[in-house]
Amino acid sequence: MYKLLHGLRIIEAASFIAAPSCALHFQQFGADVIRCDPIGGGPDFRRWPRAANGHSFYWEGLNKGKKSVAINLTTPAGKALLQRLVTAPGPDAGLFVTNFPAEGFLSHDRLIQHRADLITARVMGWASGATALDYTVNSAVGIPQMTGPASLGDEPVNHVLPAWDIAAGLYAAFALLAADRARRQTGQGTEIRLPLGDVAMAFMGHLGQIGEVSETGKDRPRYGNDLFGSFGRDFRTRDGRRIIVIALTGHQWKDLVDTLSLNEAVAAIETELCVDLSSDEGLRFCHRDRLNPIVADAIGRISLDELKVRFEGTKVCWGPYNTLSEAVGDPDLISERNPLFSAVDHLTDTRYLTPGAAASLGGFERGTPGRAPVLGEHTEEVLADVLGMASCEIAALHDAGTVAGPAGSKAL
Amino acid sequence: MYKLLHGLRIIEAASFIAAPSCALHFQQFGADVIRCDPIGGGPDFRRWPRAANGHSFYWEGLNKGKKSVAINLTTPAGKALLQRLVTAPGPDAGLFVTNFPAEGFLSHDRLIQHRADLITARVMGWASGATALDYTVNSAVGIPQMTGPASLGDEPVNHVLPAWDIAAGLYAAFALLAADRARRQTGQGTEIRLPLGDVAMAFMGHLGQIGEVSETGKDRPRYGNDLFGSFGRDFRTRDGRRIIVIALTGHQWKDLVDTLSLNEAVAAIETELCVDLSSDEGLRFCHRDRLNPIVADAIGRISLDELKVRFEGTKVCWGPYNTLSEAVGDPDLISERNPLFSAVDHLTDTRYLTPGAAASLGGFERGTPGRAPVLGEHTEEVLADVLGMASCEIAALHDAGTVAGPAGSKAL
Repeated sequence: MYKLLHGLRIIEAASFIAAPSCALHFQQFGADVIRCDPIGGGPDFRRWPRAANGHSFYWEGLNKGKKSVAINLTTPAGKALLQRLVTAPGPDAGLFVTNFPAEGFLSHDRLIQHRADLITARVMGWASGATALDYTVNSAVGIPQMTGPASLGDEPVNHVLPAWDIAAGLYAAFALLAADRARRQTGQGTEIRLPLGDVAMAFMGHLGQIGEVSETGKDRPRYGNDLFGSFGRDFRTRDGRRIIVIALTGHQWKDLVDTLSLNEAVAAIETELCVDLSSDEGLRFCHRDRLNPIVADAIGRISLDELKVRFEGTKVCWGPYNTLSEAVGDPDLISERNPLFSAVDHLTDTRYLTPGAAASLGGFERGTPGRAPVLGEHTEEVLADVLGMASCEIAALHDAGTVAGPAGSKAL
Repeated sequence: MYKLLHGLRIIEAASFIAAPSCALHFQQFGADVIRCDPIGGGPDFRRWPRAANGHSFYWEGLNKGKKSVAINLTTPAGKALLQRLVTAPGPDAGLFVTNFPAEGFLSHDRLIQHRADLITARVMGWASGATALDYTVNSAVGIPQMTGPASLGDEPVNHVLPAWDIAAGLYAAFALLAADRARRQTGQGTEIRLPLGDVAMAFMGHLGQIGEVSETGKDRPRYGNDLFGSFGRDFRTRDGRRIIVIALTGHQWKDLVDTLSLNEAVAAIETELCVDLSSDEGLRFCHRDRLNPIVADAIGRISLDELKVRFEGTKVCWGPYNTLSEAVGDPDLISERNPLFSAVDHLTDTRYLTPGAAASLGGFERGTPGRAPVLGEHTEEVLADVLGMASCEIAALHDAGTVAGPAGSKAL
C-alpha cells in the first residue's frame, strides 16, 4: 500500500461492495482500516464465488489488508462497543463508512453524542431509505433496455459488472476525504449520505442522457455493439478472433482507414454522401451501415497477429475481446510482469495474482497487498490500541460473548 | 455546490469522460475548477448527444459550473501559458487533472520545473501509454463475454455505460485529495497515473473474479439475467411490466416467499432437495431452475400496482425496469421533487433537470448546479486572477491569437 494516508483511521461496519470497497481504497492508500463484523460474519461473508474450503473470493478481495473485529451486535453491550470504536478520539480518526440503516444504533445523530465532529459516509439504496441494490437502480434508470442487440426487442440485459456499487464506493472515498479536509479547517463533521440511486441518476445526467431524452422526448434505442455517436463495434479477424475497434478522434479514424487500406473506399462514400467523415465522429455513426461492412471486410481478411503488426505505433484504438481467463494468462494484462499485481496467499487456501491500488504514484511504493483478515483476527489488538482496554477488560468481553477473536469466528 | 472544498483550485486539461468527471466532482464539492481547452474546443466538444444548435448535451453535462479558458495549444506561447496556469503558486493550488500524454509539454517532469510540489492526476488508457478507451479495456477483461443471454453464444455484448471512465474519474478525485492531504504534511507532490486498464483489472481482482478463474481455470459462463451466486432476475407482471427481483439476504428471500405466498411450494422444493434455501444464497443460485419458474408464475398473476402494495414495507428488493424517459417522468426518480435535481438553462438552449453532487451532506447546502461555460468565457478573468496579468498583457495575448475569449470560440 501507498503510505499516503498513513495514520488515518477508518472504521467500517458494512457489507457487500460499495462501502467495503470504499474502505479498501483507503487501505490501499495507507490508512488503517478496521472492519467490524458480527461474530460469524456479515451477510456478505460467504458470497460467491467461493473456494472449496468455504471462504469467499469476493469477500477476501474486498477486504484485503484490513483489520477485523468481531462483535455481537445483537446485544446492547456489543452495540455500545461499536459506537465507541466509531467515535474514538483523535484528529486522524472519527471517519466511519457504513451501509447500516440511517436509523438505529449507528445513526449519525446517535453517534455524534459521543463525538460531535464525526464524519459518517453512509451508502444507501434509495435516498428515501428504501432498499435497492446496484442491479435494481440500474434497471430503474434504463441501462438494461439500451444494452445488447436490437434483436432482443424489449428484453432487458442486466449488467454483470456492479458499476454503481463501484462508483458509489469511490464517490464515498472522495467525499470522506473532502469532509476530512473541511473538518481540519472548521472542526465540523458531517453525515454523507450516498444513495446508489442518486449516484446512478446523477451520472445519467452528467453524461448528457437526461438532457437528450428531455429534449427529444424519446429513448435512445438499442444500438447493439455500435458505439453511440461515433465509430466503433466488434469485428472478426480472418482467424476468427473478435476484436473491438473505436475511432472517436480524427487521428484514430485516419489511422484506421490508412492501416486497412480503405482510403479509396471511404473517399467514394464521402463523395457519394457529400460528407467529410474524418472531421465529425457523429457522421461516422450516422453512416455506420455503410462503414461497418467495409471495415468488417478488411479486418476479415487479416489475421489477429498481422493486425497487431499493422496497428502497432498508430493511433488506432482497438483490442481483442478476451475472456477473463485469457486476460489472466496474458503477460501484458494480469501477470506478475504487471506491477499492479502480486501473488498473495489467501484465506481460500489459494495463491493468486492480487491487485494493489489501481493508481501508480510517483515517489511512493505500491507495495504488496495484504490478505484479508480472519474474522476477529484483530479484536484484541484493536480494543487495546484504539480504546486503550486492559487485557482483563478484553477477556471479560470475550467471556460475556460480546466479542470474538479469530478462534471464535472460524466456524467455516 | 457544497462549499466543502471552497478555495481549492483544480486545473483541468482533458477531454472525454474520466478526467473531466473527476474535475466535475471537485466543482460540485466547492472547488474552483478551470478547464483549459484549445481554441474551438477539444475532441469532446461536439460529442453526441447534441442539440439542434450544435452544442453537446454530453459536454455540458460533464463541465457544469467550471470556468473555461481557451488557449492556442499549437504554439510555444500557448503551451507555456498553460504550464503557468497548472503550476501557479498557492497551498490550495497545484492540483492538475489531465488525459494528455505522459510525455510532452504537460509531462509531470516538465511541470515540476515550475512548481516542485505539483500534484498531477493523469488518466491514461493502458499503463504502457498505449491508447485505450473504456470500451476496449472492458473487452480486454472479459465483461462483454459474460453479459447477455446464453443464446448469444460467443457474441460479445458491449456496455453502453462507460463504467470504467466513471470509476477512473472518481478514483482520480480520491487520489488527488489523498495526495493533497499528504502534501500538506510533507510538502511533497506526486504524479498519479491512472490507466483505465489498471482500474478495470484491479476491480476484477477486488470482486474475486481473478481468484475464481485462477482456481477453477475456467471462465464464468454467461448467466443471462440471473444474478451470479444468488437469487435474482427479471420477471413479468400480469399486466406485462418487467420487474427485477433480487434476494441476497435471508430477510429479502423470506419476505419474497411470504408476499408471493410461496411458502408451501418452496418448502416442497427444500424437502425434495434436502436444502435450506433461506440460509445460503448460493443454494438459491444452484437451484434457480426450480425457483425461477415458481416466482415467475406467482408474479405473472399479479399486476404491477398490486405488487407495489404487497411489497411495500417488506424487505423485498425489487423495482420495475424503466426506460430512461420513464425514469425522467417518475416523481420519485428524476423530477423536481428530488433534491438531487434542479432545472437549469443550458448552452444547448434547453432547460432540463440537472443533477448536483450525488451525495447529500448534512449541514451543507447542495445548491443549484451551474451551466457549463461558453468556451473561453473565463479566459480574461482567470489570467487576471490566477496569473495576475494586467489587461494590456491579456489584450496582447488575444491579439497574438494565443488565447480567445467567448466571442472567439463561439464558432458553432
